[in-house]
Amino acid sequence: MKTIKLGICGLGTVGSGTVNVLAASGEAINRRAGATLEITHIGARRDNALCNTAGIKVSRDIFDVVDDPEIDILIELIGGTTVAKELVERAIKAGKHVVTANKALIAEFGTELFALASEHGVALRYEAAVAGGIPIIKALREGLAGNEINWLAGIINGTTNFILSEMGTAKRAFEDVLAEAQALGYAEADPTFDVEGIDAAHKLVILAAIAFGIPLNINGVYTEGVTRITPADLSFAEELGYRIKHLGIAKLTDAGVNLRVHPTLIPEEQLLSRVNGVENAVLIDGSAVGPTLYCGAGAGAAPTASAVVADIVDIARELAADQLPQIPALGVDADSITEIDSVPMAQVVTPWYLRLNVQDKPGVMSKVSSILSERGISIEALIQKPPTKGQQSVSLVVLTNPAEQAQLLGAVAEIEALETTLSDVMRIRVETLKG
Amino acid sequence: MKTIKLGICGLGTVGSGTVNVLAASGEAINRRAGATLEITHIGARRDNALCNTAGIKVSRDIFDVVDDPEIDILIELIGGTTVAKELVERAIKAGKHVVTANKALIAEFGTELFALASEHGVALRYEAAVAGGIPIIKALREGLAGNEINWLAGIINGTTNFILSEMGTAKRAFEDVLAEAQALGYAEADPTFDVEGIDAAHKLVILAAIAFGIPLNINGVYTEGVTRITPADLSFAEELGYRIKHLGIAKLTDAGVNLRVHPTLIPEEQLLSRVNGVENAVLIDGSAVGPTLYCGAGAGAAPTASAVVADIVDIARELAADQLPQIPALGVDADSITEIDSVPMAQVVTPWYLRLNVQDKPGVMSKVSSILSERGISIEALIQKPPTKGQQSVSLVVLTNPAEQAQLLGAVAEIEALETTLSDVMRIRVETLKG
Repeated sequence: MKTIKLGICGLGTVGSGTVNVLAASGEAINRRAGATLEITHIGARRDNALCNTAGIKVSRDIFDVVDDPEIDILIELIGGTTVAKELVERAIKAGKHVVTANKALIAEFGTELFALASEHGVALRYEAAVAGGIPIIKALREGLAGNEINWLAGIINGTTNFILSEMGTAKRAFEDVLAEAQALGYAEADPTFDVEGIDAAHKLVILAAIAFGIPLNINGVYTEGVTRITPADLSFAEELGYRIKHLGIAKLTDAGVNLRVHPTLIPEEQLLSRVNGVENAVLIDGSAVGPTLYCGAGAGAAPTASAVVADIVDIARELAADQLPQIPALGVDADSITEIDSVPMAQVVTPWYLRLNVQDKPGVMSKVSSILSERGISIEALIQKPPTKGQQSVSLVVLTNPAEQAQLLGAVAEIEALETTLSDVMRIRVETLKG
Repeated sequence: MKTIKLGICGLGTVGSGTVNVLAASGEAINRRAGATLEITHIGARRDNALCNTAGIKVSRDIFDVVDDPEIDILIELIGGTTVAKELVERAIKAGKHVVTANKALIAEFGTELFALASEHGVALRYEAAVAGGIPIIKALREGLAGNEINWLAGIINGTTNFILSEMGTAKRAFEDVLAEAQALGYAEADPTFDVEGIDAAHKLVILAAIAFGIPLNINGVYTEGVTRITPADLSFAEELGYRIKHLGIAKLTDAGVNLRVHPTLIPEEQLLSRVNGVENAVLIDGSAVGPTLYCGAGAGAAPTASAVVADIVDIARELAADQLPQIPALGVDADSITEIDSVPMAQVVTPWYLRLNVQDKPGVMSKVSSILSERGISIEALIQKPPTKGQQSVSLVVLTNPAEQAQLLGAVAEIEALETTLSDVMRIRVETLKG
């Protein structure tokens, strides 16, 4: 068997995971690759027990790995978008194939990097960038190649899914669960990236580009985090037959594409609603196959390494036969990537969940419903609870029929202006996810 | 773009679906393929409106399609294993790549057909043979290439899943629901193939061969149908926190491989337990990624066509670049396919669900539990219902801890011999499906 030489840059969680997976299952992986995969050079700033393997060269300067003429495939696992970009560019220019787990790099600089890779006749693969170990890039890019994708919706950030799951089952407040997630290592010290949906937006942009053949465009995503959600909302949603999930949603309609990350009520019959904890899951609706769902570990050393190795094997299989990987980075050739207009959020139509904190007075409900009905928004379901003893306010929960966001926000502003409305109206989009 | 010429043999459900999908989404599919896919020849015994497309040659003798020197990829959709085998062999010998949806053909004759394809340097692809539109072959063969597969368990027959789901929700008897499934076209007039698990066994053999790198061996599967299951069992299972699903299960342990198709109690927390109706789903436990789940339509014209087209696109992408598809049929080269000993069913260890129909007398329960405990089988949970008014018998439901089948069957025989036991003991295996 031919030997394919691998250079790994970065020995953090994913880097160590990749070295370990290749060591633990090397024989089985080589059989899949039809070649002997050999890590010959590691670039890591700090020393690490994994570096002490005979035959592996270790460099403190990761660029030494890129410049190593023996390396066939460079594996970029350092993260970030500055040095990582420079590294990937230099590897491509040196004629090396590249595998990365770096979603920010692909979401933000994918277009230019893919063009560069294509120019130099090498592959740039990134299965690990979205949904960890779930082979979702391959499914979308190859497995569903017979479909035009109508929409996709995914739980693509394990941190926010863990937080919402915990808040729901244990009726605990956001801040409380966030602290636990940080203690467990599921959330960073600065959790902004996860809880505000930025990480999910990066992944969504990648999925949408493959699904619709559109350019990667991180600015085209509406992003809303989970920090406003309360245990009360999770309970009310459940009472209405729904669960709240933090979803990345990409839709293609005649009006254009619409990419958004936000908390979403989804029907409890949807399997997606039962995906809890740090798990990830993506539901894709294709024109021929209908909806298909993919679930699994969205993060962690070994699951992410699983995706990195799958990319390596794909490339190695071709190199072993003296061929080149042919599947384009986004599943179609760069010249058929076509910009499609974005649907402005104001025009996006979904049902809505509204939670009002109102005075416990006669006539309040009738005022609220007449404001909604004047704007053509009808009510699908309603919950009004008796006031807690000694309290003057009640919660009023409304599930609307589908309504344009502009209409809905207009109605909400009017409701908030009522004297009987005691605080801002909580509003969460609803998606039925029907095929 | 290069033109890749397709010959389709068989215009039944899947054949028509394939022609329709290629017509409906041709442009999008060509972009994925990097080539113009063109159906130039159809072999169909009867005339069909789909044959009346300009430029498509139609032959009554399907072998005329195989012998057509222009065809690059032959798509076998006639089903069966006699003519289909001859057709595929002749196509391979003529140097054509082959795509098929024929699970029986692959499960029974895959080994020789793959060898023949390899000898002639062509690809033989069969994504549509298992779980319809779910790209499960690709996921297992390529997406999880970084893993050693520990086990997989799947709902891989839509007919039996529909029957069990309906029996459970509507508390209807097997025969009753089977008749409805037949009326809806979900079950054949002769349902044996589906309800006795033969179809699922074919699919399981294919999945196991890819998962473990073992030869396709249809004789190595233990197969048990769903005909014995009653609505009462579904209710008791639910009461115990489980659902009953007809699963194909393949496990690899130090003792060997074990392939079986049988009704199975699985915990309701498992997403697989919520996959209802004609849907299919496969759960795969990989050494690096842990459990990943794949769900979607397991049958039907368009979903199956989705899988057929994905295979065509995979092959076309390589041909368009004057390369050959390199991924071996089972994900590893034929010479590394290795026979692994089978674990005899008598030695397979699982928890068990037992339903006894016993006399409503003191001491019965103590007899039963002492028989179990003498054989080292401990009881995990128990349901005893008061007798229906006027009846002398009661149902006694026992959930055991893991026990070897031989031990369990011995105990069951002893329990059935008791005077107080009024009919055969219903026994169903339990799987927790923990990663």
